[in-house]
Order: sequence, then C-alpha cells, then structure tokens
Amino acid sequence: MTPTVGVIGGGQLARMMIPPAVALGIELRVLAESVGESAGLAVTSVGDFRDAATVLEFATGVDVVTFDHEHVPQDVLAALLQAGVTVAPGPAALLFAQDKLRMRERLSELQLPVPDWARILSDGDLQDFLDAHGGRAVLKTPRGGYDGKGVRVVTTVDDAADWLTPGAELLAEELVDFRRELAQLIARRPSGEIALWPVVESLQQGGVCAEVIAPAPRSAGSIADLAADIAVSVATNLDVTGVLAVELFETTDERLVINELAMRPHNTGHWTIDGSTTSQFEQHLRAVLDLPLGATGTREPWSVMVNVLGGPGSGAIPDRYALALADQPTVKFHSYGKASRPGRKVGHVTATGDDLDDVVYRARAAAEFFRA
Amino acid sequence: MTPTVGVIGGGQLARMMIPPAVALGIELRVLAESVGESAGLAVTSVGDFRDAATVLEFATGVDVVTFDHEHVPQDVLAALLQAGVTVAPGPAALLFAQDKLRMRERLSELQLPVPDWARILSDGDLQDFLDAHGGRAVLKTPRGGYDGKGVRVVTTVDDAADWLTPGAELLAEELVDFRRELAQLIARRPSGEIALWPVVESLQQGGVCAEVIAPAPRSAGSIADLAADIAVSVATNLDVTGVLAVELFETTDERLVINELAMRPHNTGHWTIDGSTTSQFEQHLRAVLDLPLGATGTREPWSVMVNVLGGPGSGAIPDRYALALADQPTVKFHSYGKASRPGRKVGHVTATGDDLDDVVYRARAAAEFFRA
Repeated sequence: MTPTVGVIGGGQLARMMIPPAVALGIELRVLAESVGESAGLAVTSVGDFRDAATVLEFATGVDVVTFDHEHVPQDVLAALLQAGVTVAPGPAALLFAQDKLRMRERLSELQLPVPDWARILSDGDLQDFLDAHGGRAVLKTPRGGYDGKGVRVVTTVDDAADWLTPGAELLAEELVDFRRELAQLIARRPSGEIALWPVVESLQQGGVCAEVIAPAPRSAGSIADLAADIAVSVATNLDVTGVLAVELFETTDERLVINELAMRPHNTGHWTIDGSTTSQFEQHLRAVLDLPLGATGTREPWSVMVNVLGGPGSGAIPDRYALALADQPTVKFHSYGKASRPGRKVGHVTATGDDLDDVVYRARAAAEFFRA
Repeated sequence: MTPTVGVIGGGQLARMMIPPAVALGIELRVLAESVGESAGLAVTSVGDFRDAATVLEFATGVDVVTFDHEHVPQDVLAALLQAGVTVAPGPAALLFAQDKLRMRERLSELQLPVPDWARILSDGDLQDFLDAHGGRAVLKTPRGGYDGKGVRVVTTVDDAADWLTPGAELLAEELVDFRRELAQLIARRPSGEIALWPVVESLQQGGVCAEVIAPAPRSAGSIADLAADIAVSVATNLDVTGVLAVELFETTDERLVINELAMRPHNTGHWTIDGSTTSQFEQHLRAVLDLPLGATGTREPWSVMVNVLGGPGSGAIPDRYALALADQPTVKFHSYGKASRPGRKVGHVTATGDDLDDVVYRARAAAEFFRA
C-alpha cells in the first residue's frame, strides 16, 4: 500500500531523504550503525551493515533497499538478492562505485574518457607508471576512500611504501592537468527513464567538496552536452538505478575526464533541494521505487551551495545560528544534526538568484557564521 | 542545545513541520490523539490534549509548545503557562482564534473591518438581526467550527432552532456581498519581527478551501497594501506569535472585511512550501522559537495549490499516483499519509510558473488523478 524504502546507513544523505519521503507519502526505514545518527528520525534498526542477517532482517517488508553510502559488502548484497529483495542500485552496478580499479577497467572498456591508469601490484609497476608520466602519479586504494582519504600524490616508490604491502592492489592514475572540477548528476529508473540536472562546478578544499555552483559557469553548449553524454553512457551501460554522480575534470585542453562515480545522492547535488524543481533526494526515492521522475530544471538562474564544516568547539547548532538566519534571510540552511568535529560536514547552506556574484556572496556569508 | 518544539496535534500541519525541522536541526515532538496520525513520524506522545496532566508531561523539556489545531482548552493552556512552559501563540491570543464571538468583539474594538455582527442568545436576538439585514444572516457556533462545519445561512428563526437551545451563545453575521475570498498570511516573533507573504486568493467549494492562487490576481497595489495593514494590525494588537492567517472577503464595493483568523500554518499557505523562499511551516518554527524570520518572496510569478480530497475507495496513495507523477513532472505532490475518506483532505499539489493559465492547468490536472 504505502511505498516503503529501506536505506542502509544513517548519515546526512539518509536524513535528507526524510523531507521528500514525507511529501510523497513514502515510508522510510533506516538501518543505522548506532543511535543518534544524522537520520535518527527515520531509524528503524540499529546494527552492522556488514552482517547479512542484520541487513536481511532490516529489509523485511520494504519495497526496495538503497544506500546512504557505498560500503555494504557484495556478499551482503548477494544475500539480499537471493532473498528476493529489490536493491537499487544493484550490486553489479554498485561494484563500480565500490572498487575504483573495477570502475577504471569498465569505463576504459566502454571507451569513456578516463585519466591514464594502471593496476599497481609492486614497486616495479609503480616505478614504470611514474617513468611514463613525468615522475608523478595519483595513487589510490581501490576501496574505502572518500573525501580525500585513500588518495595521495606520489613521486617516488618510497612515497607508497606503507600501501605497497604484499598482496595489496592499488590504482595509479596520471595527474590530470585540469582547469576545474565538474559534476554531472543523473537519475535513472529500472524501467530506463533518465533525468539530468545541469552540470555543476565543484570547488574542493583539502580533497573535500567545499562549494558547488549550479549550473557550472560557462558550461552551456559543448561542455554541458559532453557531460550529459558521459553520464547517460555510464548510467545506462553500468545499469545504475537511483541517482548517479559523475565527477569530472575539465582539462586545460578542454576535454572532460571521469574522476569518480557515486551511486547515491551526492554532495555536488545538495543545491537541488533549493535550486531545482526536483531535489536529488526526491528523485532518488522516485527512481529506486521505479516511479516517474520529476522535472530537473533550475528554479533560479544560479544556485550556490557551501558546506558547513565543524570547527573547534562549535555545537550542532552554534549560537551563531540565529545570527546567520538574521544576516541572510534568503539563504536556506540545512543542519545534519551531528555533533561538530573539526572538518566534519555538519550542514550546508544554499543561496539562489539571478546574479552569480551576489549568490556566491550570500552563501559564503551565511556559511561563514559557522566557521572557526 | 538542540532547539525543541512541541506540537499539540498530529495532523497534516504538524506533518508538514517535519521537513523544515529536519533542515533547521530542530527537534520536533508531537502529541497525537492516536497512533497512525498524519504526523506519525514525529509523534513522541499519544494522549488527550484536553487533559492538563497529559499535556504538561508532553511539554517537559521543550523550548516552546505550539499547535496543529486550535482546540486546546484555555485551562490546559493556563496550566502550561503556570508550569513555566512557553506557549506560542499565547493563550490570550489563541482565544480569538478559538472563539469567534470574542474575535468579533476584539476586532470591532480595534476598528478593523468586520461584517456587521451580533451576539445571539434568543429567538428575539436573531429575529432582530434578520430584520436589520434583509432577512438573511450567517449563523455560527462561536467554538469548534471549521471547514464549513458550525456555519449556516439562515433566513428564519426556525432555521436555527436546533442551535438556539437555552444557554446557547451564537454569532450572527451579515451575509457579505463578496467578489472573492482572499487570505493574508503573516508570521510574528515574540520579539516583534514580522514577515508577510503576498495576499492570496482562495477558492472555496462547499465551505472547504479547494484552490489557492498566489499572489491573488489583480491584487497589486491597494488591495495588497490593505490586506497587509489589516494582518499587521491583527498580529500586533492581538500579540500573535507564529503564523497567522487572516481570511478576508473582497467585497463588490472594493473593501476588505475580515472573515476568520487562524493562528497556525493554514491551508491558504501550503503554496509557500514550493512557491516561497521560506515556507509557512519553516517560518512558524522560526517564529515560535523567536529565531529570525526568513524571506517571504515568491520563487516564481505564480503558484497554484489544489487540495486533494479523498474519493470513495481511493487509498492513501492511489494507483493513479504514478500516473500523476508521470503526467505532471513539474508539479509538487504532498501526501498527508492519511487513509482516504470521501471529502477528507488527504494531500495537495502545487504548480508554479510564469503563466497563470498554464500553472492553474497543471495543478488541476495533477489533482484530477486523485479524484473520483
């Protein structure tokens, strides 16, 4: 009767699915690792997502299982499928978001644009790659990295000594000479319908997304078309269902190269809550339930999202919250209901409007109240 | 630390406070009359709002108590104040939304525009009023009426026989010759800050709000100014905190006359979720917590809200839901998570855009899927 979606993981992505679930009349059930997580309001189970029995019990009676993060092991996903549970995105697709080496292999097979890369099993492999790429490489652990973790730039084999242990498998990539980072968000239903938001520009600080400008300035035309083509190809060929974020480098020679894939709502899509007719969170719920997708147009010419990172000593809602609301009455605030820790994403703000400089100013001004 | 708002009543108004509470990091606690109500996700207590002990226990630890409806008895409100609980709107203000006779007395004292009215205690009182008003009157029970209940048009004393029992107190009002119905929404903080949305036009069917057009067509200028002046005067003089809806008649001789007051988010403000920078539900939470108010501009030139009423046999989310989503990808759907009964408000839809005819068409087309 009531559509029911089970979300594995209780972070802010699950939290931000609550408002559209309320609006659409969808029952949301969340499996959190511990009590008091960001999506606490919708948590129905607390347990280990690596444990098949826990996840199977959680999934009883839901129409579809989806994810707040990409860390659910493949054997747990296989157990869900075997029990007849619908999983979106499916395990075969999700693998390419879980394992960067498999992702690079598959995208290369599809002849999609990726940086030069190699599988690294030994010092010799890495030295060969460095020699072929001007003595520099981006080295990545294939699994478990996020927000700058599991990634480092190396110039010698020694730089990788702690990772290059026997049996380890690493991914080396060329250091792409890029002008800026873009992200193309797309949603896809099991029945094949797709919807794309405009390509956005993301500004990174310390390997973490700091700001997003939507649409990406000076992207209209060939860049937007190319980003859309790439995302459609990835979503379709990898059979992704739900929201897919394709993070891209725009190179100095005006190519687009795929950096990362995320198969869930993504930080580069938070602006859609306030800036698009359909938010990525609503769209993800519609897509995984195989309901018709919503319109993805922008509500104003520009949207700018700025992440709010925890500083030392600030609480979940600092005293400056009231000051920020008073100073920026047009900016929309999104708290993640998390205890603050230095550098932790505890919320974001979004400004929208006609004039990009003004929109950037207002979003940054609002976020500034939460810093330091 | 976390701001906490207690809402008495578990209906759709409490439900629609959940999304902004999630965004703002506000803890919402709801006292519902029974399990399974519309705001079920945020329900923390189930009990009788007429029972002071139940309400006092519910209110423990909240920063402010507010309301999904206006039916909490004054003695219960007094007990809350005595226990040191902040109540918004306060009991002295709320009285004027609970008792239409007290409201008419107070608005008349303030020389605000109201229909001719009289307190009716006897057949003779009613006959005198009919004689003075062309043989017609709108008769109202001062308390408990809503959505056309507790209101009837009478032309003879006999028409009122069942209500005119010994000790009964009724309100008679002139039948206002109106061109259309308007509503002016305003929010006010305890510290005095106010914010107004544009005046809207509401279309009633059978005494129930059916559609709202925002802003009211042809209202720019003197009508908008007058509606705003009236709402500011009511909110300020009655010391209303939170959202106040002032329902108005626009008369054929171009005056505005106050029809009803509601001191909570109101059906005529549902369009603000999708059509304004700050929704009435977010603003109500900000106002009752005495936080700075958000901007109330429109996001698009026109917003049209159409209520979805239950028909015979349709469920909470009918099978036609997917058809409606597919047919109207730009329309926003809001389910109240209620079992459907004929005539019951089970949701609403909002369309926005530049062209009023098109916006009306899309909103009605989307709502039409849920009828019959």
